[in-house]
Amino acid sequence: MTHFDAATLRETLTTLFTENGATPTVAETTARILVEGDLLGHHTHGVKLANGYLKDLRAGHAKGDDALLEIHRNSPVAALFDGHYLLGPYVVQRALDHGREAAKHYGIGMVCVKRSHHIACLAAYLQPLVDANLVPMILSSDPAVASVAPFGGLDRVYTPNPLAIGIPGREQPQLIDVSMSTLTNGTVGKAHAAGDKLAHPAILSGTGDVSDDPADYFAEPPGSILPLGGLAFGHKGFALGLMVEALTSALSGFGRKDAPEGWGASVMVMVIDPAKFGGTEAFLDETDFVARRCLDAKPRDPARPVRLPGQSGLKRRDDALASGLALPDDVVASLQEALAGSSLAGKTPFG
Amino acid sequence: MTHFDAATLRETLTTLFTENGATPTVAETTARILVEGDLLGHHTHGVKLANGYLKDLRAGHAKGDDALLEIHRNSPVAALFDGHYLLGPYVVQRALDHGREAAKHYGIGMVCVKRSHHIACLAAYLQPLVDANLVPMILSSDPAVASVAPFGGLDRVYTPNPLAIGIPGREQPQLIDVSMSTLTNGTVGKAHAAGDKLAHPAILSGTGDVSDDPADYFAEPPGSILPLGGLAFGHKGFALGLMVEALTSALSGFGRKDAPEGWGASVMVMVIDPAKFGGTEAFLDETDFVARRCLDAKPRDPARPVRLPGQSGLKRRDDALASGLALPDDVVASLQEALAGSSLAGKTPFG
Repeated sequence: MTHFDAATLRETLTTLFTENGATPTVAETTARILVEGDLLGHHTHGVKLANGYLKDLRAGHAKGDDALLEIHRNSPVAALFDGHYLLGPYVVQRALDHGREAAKHYGIGMVCVKRSHHIACLAAYLQPLVDANLVPMILSSDPAVASVAPFGGLDRVYTPNPLAIGIPGREQPQLIDVSMSTLTNGTVGKAHAAGDKLAHPAILSGTGDVSDDPADYFAEPPGSILPLGGLAFGHKGFALGLMVEALTSALSGFGRKDAPEGWGASVMVMVIDPAKFGGTEAFLDETDFVARRCLDAKPRDPARPVRLPGQSGLKRRDDALASGLALPDDVVASLQEALAGSSLAGKTPFG
Repeated sequence: MTHFDAATLRETLTTLFTENGATPTVAETTARILVEGDLLGHHTHGVKLANGYLKDLRAGHAKGDDALLEIHRNSPVAALFDGHYLLGPYVVQRALDHGREAAKHYGIGMVCVKRSHHIACLAAYLQPLVDANLVPMILSSDPAVASVAPFGGLDRVYTPNPLAIGIPGREQPQLIDVSMSTLTNGTVGKAHAAGDKLAHPAILSGTGDVSDDPADYFAEPPGSILPLGGLAFGHKGFALGLMVEALTSALSGFGRKDAPEGWGASVMVMVIDPAKFGGTEAFLDETDFVARRCLDAKPRDPARPVRLPGQSGLKRRDDALASGLALPDDVVASLQEALAGSSLAGKTPFG
């Protein structure tokens, strides 16, 4: 583990994105969201992604010019964005800004996004809205990738399909970011690259056996990632995965039927203002009450008290901002590769 | 199994609710939704509930006068309903009607409901909206009941918290209705009453052991229902359960903090019109494409091809409308008890 200063890391990434054709607002937003992912502890979906984003910018598949974002404002609360493969963090941030403005006046704002580039860590977007006592939601799928099989089947059809939601609370806000599969593609790939087994059997091999070996995912016939719920209750994870498919790709009008290639995302973003429903104070009172009940529950293992979603991430974030952000070796290696051909090569402490 | 005519069953229930103080629109809507639950095969959440609803009407906890429904239209797309414990099917149907009207003009409509009485089977509401190429969503929790423990804990804090969504499709629409726990309270209670084991270990005993014996739920110290994902991935089911808590109770401003008693529900209803996002035709094209991919996937067990959510329910519904609705013995017994004190006692084929 090497420790980094988060602000320096953001500036470094901003320079890299700018030198590869991103306009300042796109470069800054993408850098901020990637670093935010690591601050919350999601190292597979943070700075490590930068090198791939830069390669896609150079190859022309990812775009960096914010002028490309196409906005169809179909009602005061409903918009369709065509991202034209602009870097995803910029596109999602614009969608959240749009939804937030609508929610302020109407209580809800919803934006569907087609043809975004990859959108990184969903939890990384939530905190500013939660701090403003708003409820942000982000759902995402990648119509160019298939890694999860429908419940009862062996062929990969769809993606882990994460859902994120931020729940404001006075004592302990909740940052939820969960995929509708047991594991993400990133976790399976990382374990495979390291030659490790998975912590739990989460792969269905191509011959129908449940396995904790990521190699079974990459074998022939190919395996798949089990939906949340596994063999016993996977019909629920499958249903939730289909929900995310529908609210992202189907609702944006662009998806698997269009056979897209390369890194991308269909996204649904929603912002809700509790002030336009039962009221902000009542919302916070109820969240605090339920959070306290959960935290006070007798733990199954006395050494591991109940934690709320996002609780350890926010703690990790505070610690990293105070004492430096520890990045795992694979992230540092990826960053060094990204820096190699840039104006910063040899000039930074991590060049 | 006794076979019933669905229309006769609806009329019978309507009479029973009317004789116990429900106004015609409340009685008819509640009867229709309960029968619809059984038509789709959800016998724990259909006609079997009528007797309990009638008892609550007589005891004054459930209300039957539609004039009681209090509507706060906080924006053209955001409303808060206070149900004052009106029978839930009526309240939810009104919320869907409200959301549908908003969605027609704005693309989305959202209604949060506090103090509804029990709302029966969530899937039972979806089909009319799906047939109109709209996307209805219903989320529900019961702030008076606690049966699921937070992940890592042993104390019951919240409810199974179902989420339902209807996804229009030309070939095979999808009706999704899943709880964020492994099992519902109804399934655990039914197995316990019958002295059966559960199909899968879904109970966490009060001493922290995973169990397939529903008696462990009712033991001392009390057990809890495991969140979706179980011991390995239950942090995801827990997070999704908290999401439903927040979008129902916190957002409606009334929940566990208010320590309500008796049967009730906090509900969030949303209706989305794809026409205001990527377009209805593109939505249907994408849904059909993904559905076909799923149905064509090689099955793990050749005797059990992949099914989409709602597929067997809709098939069952068609069969029941054609050849009569088969009700299990426990449902018939409950119906007979409900009929005993009514004007229909002895006058119906199932009196």
